[in-house]
Amino acid sequence: MPEAAKSRAASAEVVAALDIGGTKTTAAIVTRQGEVVERVTAATPGKAGASAVIHTAADLVNRLRASSAAPVRALGVGSAGVIDRRSGQVLSATDVLTGWAGTDLRGRLQQLLGLPVTVINDVHAHALGEARHGVAAGCETLLFIAVGTGIGGSFVIGDAVLAGAHSVAGHAGHQPSPYAGSLPCTCGGRGHLEAIASGPGLADEYGRRSGQPVDDLRSVAVLARRGDQTAQEVILLGGAAVGSAVGGLVNMLDPDAVVIGGGVPGVGELWWRALRDAVQREVLPGLDDVPVLASALGAEAPLLGAASLAWESLS
Amino acid sequence: MPEAAKSRAASAEVVAALDIGGTKTTAAIVTRQGEVVERVTAATPGKAGASAVIHTAADLVNRLRASSAAPVRALGVGSAGVIDRRSGQVLSATDVLTGWAGTDLRGRLQQLLGLPVTVINDVHAHALGEARHGVAAGCETLLFIAVGTGIGGSFVIGDAVLAGAHSVAGHAGHQPSPYAGSLPCTCGGRGHLEAIASGPGLADEYGRRSGQPVDDLRSVAVLARRGDQTAQEVILLGGAAVGSAVGGLVNMLDPDAVVIGGGVPGVGELWWRALRDAVQREVLPGLDDVPVLASALGAEAPLLGAASLAWESLS
Repeated sequence: MPEAAKSRAASAEVVAALDIGGTKTTAAIVTRQGEVVERVTAATPGKAGASAVIHTAADLVNRLRASSAAPVRALGVGSAGVIDRRSGQVLSATDVLTGWAGTDLRGRLQQLLGLPVTVINDVHAHALGEARHGVAAGCETLLFIAVGTGIGGSFVIGDAVLAGAHSVAGHAGHQPSPYAGSLPCTCGGRGHLEAIASGPGLADEYGRRSGQPVDDLRSVAVLARRGDQTAQEVILLGGAAVGSAVGGLVNMLDPDAVVIGGGVPGVGELWWRALRDAVQREVLPGLDDVPVLASALGAEAPLLGAASLAWESLS
Repeated sequence: MPEAAKSRAASAEVVAALDIGGTKTTAAIVTRQGEVVERVTAATPGKAGASAVIHTAADLVNRLRASSAAPVRALGVGSAGVIDRRSGQVLSATDVLTGWAGTDLRGRLQQLLGLPVTVINDVHAHALGEARHGVAAGCETLLFIAVGTGIGGSFVIGDAVLAGAHSVAGHAGHQPSPYAGSLPCTCGGRGHLEAIASGPGLADEYGRRSGQPVDDLRSVAVLARRGDQTAQEVILLGGAAVGSAVGGLVNMLDPDAVVIGGGVPGVGELWWRALRDAVQREVLPGLDDVPVLASALGAEAPLLGAASLAWESLS
């Protein structure tokens, strides 16, 4: 921990933040200024059920609390799954976290930790982190799109994320995409952006085009760097599909900025170029200067977003 | 004017509202409760330039003021074109209103009428009318889609419409549509929803499919009622294209309700059925009960929306 942060933490109150994902859970101590003072990570026991996940998370927070010089005043949580914006319960979740749906996440953490707890979906937390402390700091509105195993999104407006009437807002991957044909989507629908432009979607597309199935998008990226033309085409397709959808959303929402996060953008410049070109093709005159930025905070973003909610719960 | 409204108007203050469209301009006197006390309409002198349009509009308001028993306290304006949300200036407009872009609409009406003036785009005004006094009254968030000569939209959130960072938000017709192929769009882009599913878009599609060009969508509707299968297919296509886009937006925005307005929905039940079916195909589990409603206020909606802004300017 940097000395400056240490002394600040020593002299002031702090909050705790949790990022509960399908594979790992991270806890952090965060200052009011959005500085991560300390952090600790554990594997998420996703197959062991909700109680195991919650206890793992609470243990991480307790470890940080025990060593924190400053009192921990509240906890903000970014979690996988659809989170009820009012109750902090998990409304639905994918199979990665067994029994996660229906969990009273806020209530149980509150009980275990004796802290005020605020819970939000992890993609929303990421967006909020970027809007408060990241590449979109100072923006009044922000469209965040996370492109990874799935494609999620979040619209930050003023001092809040748009949670939606059913807490389901942000499912940017589940919109019709001209690039997706009638490919089946994880949601049960067809032709959605996620079906073609997620990591698995692009890996599958490479398999279909080349007749040679690959494990994941990383393999496609390696092939593309070696000059495999089909791999390059698939990566261009992925960037264009996301960019086209982003352009349409920009025309509807006219945000101050767009931030792109998730693992897929890591495939590199080929993907980014296709994305930016597609955004430009799609947007109306007057919107061609909306910045399309790479998420800058990385894994820290959801922690900072969750922490900012914890601070707000105190004010 | 109904006697009840007359007496209410006599005993209280009222505001004026203007709906400035490409073909006609309507002014109205509106109570705080959203009741239209009196209204008057004139042709919009769209080809005669901005000053002519503004004087026509101001004259209508003055006529109503002269006969109003209650004092007119403010003016709310819904106008064609992209309206700067801060200055009330027209940022851009289609050719229907010559020289409309660049007009200081708020400033000039304020000067001519000596009233506080609030200006908003007419689609936003329509959405606001439905959210305040129409079929979506009481909804916290509303997605409004107007399907006519063009396709526009508006997202009402809390007590405001989302104007956007460049005042361009709401351009729902300019999103990629799997139904549009690479058809050229009015915006200069390709493959947008508006290119296939607007009134002219569907009329053109009928011409392409049948080899028999028609003047407008009304002709297609007549043919469909007479049993012309191509005409029926085109109408189904239009409903499905709009419904598919609406479904994607519902997944992103999770609004309390969707309201559909504009002239195209008037083609009838065939279009509506295709729209509702497409929305259902597209939306995530948990969003299949988001109501998709027909605009109920019709031509009164933009007046009531503009009037509600006028009332707010006074509070």
